[in-house]
Amino acid sequence: MILKENERLDLLNFHGLNIIQSNEVFSYSIDAVLLAHFCYVNKNKDGNIFDLCAGNGAVGLLLSQRTQAHITLVEIQEKLYDMAKRSVMLNNKQEQIDVICQDLNQLKTLYPPSFCDVICCNPPYFKVTAHSKQNPNRHLAIARHEIFANVEQVIAQSHYLLKNKGHLCLVHRPDRLTSIIATMAQYNIAPKRLQFVHPKKNSEANMILIDGVHGGKMEGLKILSPIYVHNDDGSYSKQIQEIFHG
Amino acid sequence: MILKENERLDLLNFHGLNIIQSNEVFSYSIDAVLLAHFCYVNKNKDGNIFDLCAGNGAVGLLLSQRTQAHITLVEIQEKLYDMAKRSVMLNNKQEQIDVICQDLNQLKTLYPPSFCDVICCNPPYFKVTAHSKQNPNRHLAIARHEIFANVEQVIAQSHYLLKNKGHLCLVHRPDRLTSIIATMAQYNIAPKRLQFVHPKKNSEANMILIDGVHGGKMEGLKILSPIYVHNDDGSYSKQIQEIFHG
Repeated sequence: MILKENERLDLLNFHGLNIIQSNEVFSYSIDAVLLAHFCYVNKNKDGNIFDLCAGNGAVGLLLSQRTQAHITLVEIQEKLYDMAKRSVMLNNKQEQIDVICQDLNQLKTLYPPSFCDVICCNPPYFKVTAHSKQNPNRHLAIARHEIFANVEQVIAQSHYLLKNKGHLCLVHRPDRLTSIIATMAQYNIAPKRLQFVHPKKNSEANMILIDGVHGGKMEGLKILSPIYVHNDDGSYSKQIQEIFHG
Repeated sequence: MILKENERLDLLNFHGLNIIQSNEVFSYSIDAVLLAHFCYVNKNKDGNIFDLCAGNGAVGLLLSQRTQAHITLVEIQEKLYDMAKRSVMLNNKQEQIDVICQDLNQLKTLYPPSFCDVICCNPPYFKVTAHSKQNPNRHLAIARHEIFANVEQVIAQSHYLLKNKGHLCLVHRPDRLTSIIATMAQYNIAPKRLQFVHPKKNSEANMILIDGVHGGKMEGLKILSPIYVHNDDGSYSKQIQEIFHG
């Protein structure tokens, strides 16, 4: 049996994939589905995609439906790494997807520079401060708070790992857009596509999706038409349903 | 008679203002109306607002309907400066609005640091390159191309002119958002509100509105609900009509 104690098997939305989840660790959320949908992908088999902060593997599994490229999932938490590895097997994706248990800040010691065509990341969103309330569950705290990595480190690592003209695709919160854009510019990664996710019409965005090109010109940023998650009555919008159904 | 040769008197949308325009120079456009609507304003009379690249004065005149603060229009082109000055008189706004004919890069020599509460600017949008096609009409070329000033210079000047916690509000094109955000961060002006303007639904944005606070924390950026200019049938959206009607 592929499931361990307190784990369950969930459908990864409607993409025909199964994913192992557990209430004891971080489960994938809409952020992962939107990142996998937004992410630039290489269509050919020669491509090399890295998913940093891969969690239980949702983004990587969804990406594998869109690309023939090889995908490496990088996750620092042993428990999530182990779940992702089994989910990959469960979906018969082990030829396309590797899973490694690794601190993303150590990738420099494992891979040569310019190794990747695409990097995507759904990093922890919240700063660790003297006043930040972290989840008492350490697994959840690491997934939500910048305990082992922050988005600025992800950008710095991407500068090393990405080929010239390689893509870095991130999901994060509007709150951090200034730092993300300034840090990308500092590391010679030019933002090229930006999409905002609003919970519903007439509300502020609560999520950003950004695609930057390593070595690209610092001009030519496109602001895509936004995504609205809910209709006024609280139901999922047609747009979101189409993304979920793949 | 207040009009000179080839000039006409236009209604400044529906705000009960008259504005002198001429086909020989840059006329105000929707960008100016949206900037005046978006711009942060001081409600009290003590405030000091500067409109850089003021053109024929549309933004400043519209702002004067929203605030009691003193407004200084800064325009480098003598012809536009002269039209703005007469439009101010025509609307009996000469107590609230000053107009000066000046290169914005010289403001340091005229005003002490931290003089302004708010700066707004609808700058020329296009870079001057070896291949850029400039309008043969020099007045229009200066308004559209970065011949005498660019947005990065506006940000640098604002760093000098703005009080601590003063606001810089800009309208520009998505193409330049990366540079605007990175330059604001460099000059200690924290983007706090960002709004995108899309020509219609399901299309990319073609305009950005950004409000930065001098000396503010580099976090807490809000992405406002976007503005759609047109309905699917090409008519102006309800949102735009409400802004135009004031």
